[in-house]
Amino acid sequence: MKLVVTQENLAKALQVVGRVATGKTPLPILNNILFRTDKNRLLLAATNLEIAITQYVGSKVETEGTITVPARLMSEFISNLPKGNVTLEADGTKLHIKSGTYQSTINGMAPDEFPALPEITAHQEMTLAPSVLKRAIQQTVLVASIDDTRPMLTGVYCHTCEGTLYFAATDGYRLAERSLGVFEQELRAIIPAQTLQDVLRVMTDDMNEIKLIFDENQMRILLDDIEITSRLIDGIFPDYRQLIPAKSDIEVTLRKDEFTRITKVASLFARESGGSVTLKASEADQRLSIHSVASQLGENTSEAEAKVTAAGQVTLNSRYLIEGLGCIDSPVVTFSFSGKLAACILTIAEGERDYKHIIMPLKS
Amino acid sequence: MKLVVTQENLAKALQVVGRVATGKTPLPILNNILFRTDKNRLLLAATNLEIAITQYVGSKVETEGTITVPARLMSEFISNLPKGNVTLEADGTKLHIKSGTYQSTINGMAPDEFPALPEITAHQEMTLAPSVLKRAIQQTVLVASIDDTRPMLTGVYCHTCEGTLYFAATDGYRLAERSLGVFEQELRAIIPAQTLQDVLRVMTDDMNEIKLIFDENQMRILLDDIEITSRLIDGIFPDYRQLIPAKSDIEVTLRKDEFTRITKVASLFARESGGSVTLKASEADQRLSIHSVASQLGENTSEAEAKVTAAGQVTLNSRYLIEGLGCIDSPVVTFSFSGKLAACILTIAEGERDYKHIIMPLKS
Repeated sequence: MKLVVTQENLAKALQVVGRVATGKTPLPILNNILFRTDKNRLLLAATNLEIAITQYVGSKVETEGTITVPARLMSEFISNLPKGNVTLEADGTKLHIKSGTYQSTINGMAPDEFPALPEITAHQEMTLAPSVLKRAIQQTVLVASIDDTRPMLTGVYCHTCEGTLYFAATDGYRLAERSLGVFEQELRAIIPAQTLQDVLRVMTDDMNEIKLIFDENQMRILLDDIEITSRLIDGIFPDYRQLIPAKSDIEVTLRKDEFTRITKVASLFARESGGSVTLKASEADQRLSIHSVASQLGENTSEAEAKVTAAGQVTLNSRYLIEGLGCIDSPVVTFSFSGKLAACILTIAEGERDYKHIIMPLKS
Repeated sequence: MKLVVTQENLAKALQVVGRVATGKTPLPILNNILFRTDKNRLLLAATNLEIAITQYVGSKVETEGTITVPARLMSEFISNLPKGNVTLEADGTKLHIKSGTYQSTINGMAPDEFPALPEITAHQEMTLAPSVLKRAIQQTVLVASIDDTRPMLTGVYCHTCEGTLYFAATDGYRLAERSLGVFEQELRAIIPAQTLQDVLRVMTDDMNEIKLIFDENQMRILLDDIEITSRLIDGIFPDYRQLIPAKSDIEVTLRKDEFTRITKVASLFARESGGSVTLKASEADQRLSIHSVASQLGENTSEAEAKVTAAGQVTLNSRYLIEGLGCIDSPVVTFSFSGKLAACILTIAEGERDYKHIIMPLKS
């Protein structure tokens, strides 16, 4: 293998594929990146057996071939080189790299030890604008569980219900559901949260429409020259919709920035109590107040003007509330609840409510 | 005590003094900040018994008084409040804080438990422009030792020699000396590195001339409304000047950015060998090359054009070299050495050499 590629393109591609090759693994070859020529392109690939990322880079190929080299050293080395042409030349399992006055030899491993890249047959297929996919992931992946004892909850549930496509996630304490419009095919896929984090990481604003392909056990996301192929999580996602209250007794509507600020201030006094803050809606005063107590340190009450339909109070984890507010795409939000025990809902105050963020109350 | 102060000024002052009140300490009162009215000003003070920081804040004082409150909670609370007036009212050891729709009570401690703030008598006194002091600290504090077994080396030695003021520091492996011009008084003070880090932290570009006052055991730095008072380190600083070579056999002059880049690239291959890289000056080629070997991973040679007065090679710690280059204020640097064993010197290539950065070679 001998080829010439620009430092800029190679460094970018190494960043994209490198992440999955830098984890702990019992198989040393998985810490390597596969390089393989393909006509006038260079394919870079890395996998941890759960997820595989590949990217094509335009290059001037003199001799075809393939090699694998350690991801971390290769990425750091290339990203520190000056801009311009880089020559890669494989000699057995050694890769010689030249760029201006820099020359290095990196010891690789034979490519035949590298796992075969996953194949996929499209059972379902959809196309989404990058901005839509990005926000849908951000609004749901946040509440996916990090507890591996319930693997189904560590992913985002991508499914259809009555002809509409939804992304949903829950960790048992909170729940987020984003509707993504009409989708006629039947789909029930639990995408690992880490896969979606990788999609966010490699996504850029100037990308074309993004294609998602599903088969029974895998999915592939095509982002211009990048392909991410991931296993899906086995199992049946819980019937989360029964946790979403059909209606609430109390609706509080206020500015999102004020709601966020009074919650943040209250949370400073809630460290001893695991973040527990008590929200009190006053119909008479048309105000929402948040109270928190730190027995040793002091106490706090913060208030904001709000449109309140009925009086009531509820105790929540302040971190969940702050993170939930960050998911609402509107300067004015509606917080709906029904007393101390029922689930609370955050939505936009006006317009199409295609996103719901549910938080379970704490015992108070 | 009752007073009104702006959130902006109070938040800034809490940031300045708060750092020294947030360390681990067996005395709980040292995690508190002292508030004390002084006519139409509010004094904030914190100390860890090694260093005390005070700042005055303009305020509308209704009732004089004093109280202490936990630094961390108070800082975080005030910095999260909206801009505008904040009312502070002490009630015994409780501090009531009001700002618009926010009200909190923070439990403090009686101010009579707070240590007396240090007094100082000026034996020596100097004034420096903020930009000059800042750079002199940055160029020396970096090489101060972090090894507490040799306490003298954990500070910056501020001293006079033949009527010139110097800042100097060394950890035994490298040494930095900055000359700061004429100073007629005799001075030998070892300032703790942490004190100088605090000076860098609170210094802003718009400050007036900075005054430094020394007595036998303490120093004080006056930065506008801020006063930092620190103990000095006991002991006699080693006679470091004998470590600075009077002349070197080989001088290599090259662009600082290229020297930095080839060293960084070489350092990637030097992780297994504790950062060891070998520099080779070639008089015939008028080049400096850096070579590094990672037995498992590969090897690297990077070169840069240079003005070389004689051939030679030396092995150095690449991190020391990169950090040393960062201290040189010039686009072109001169690297002087005399073979494998003698100390190496980094200086600016042309102009007044008021800064020297010495690095001891590694055995190769």
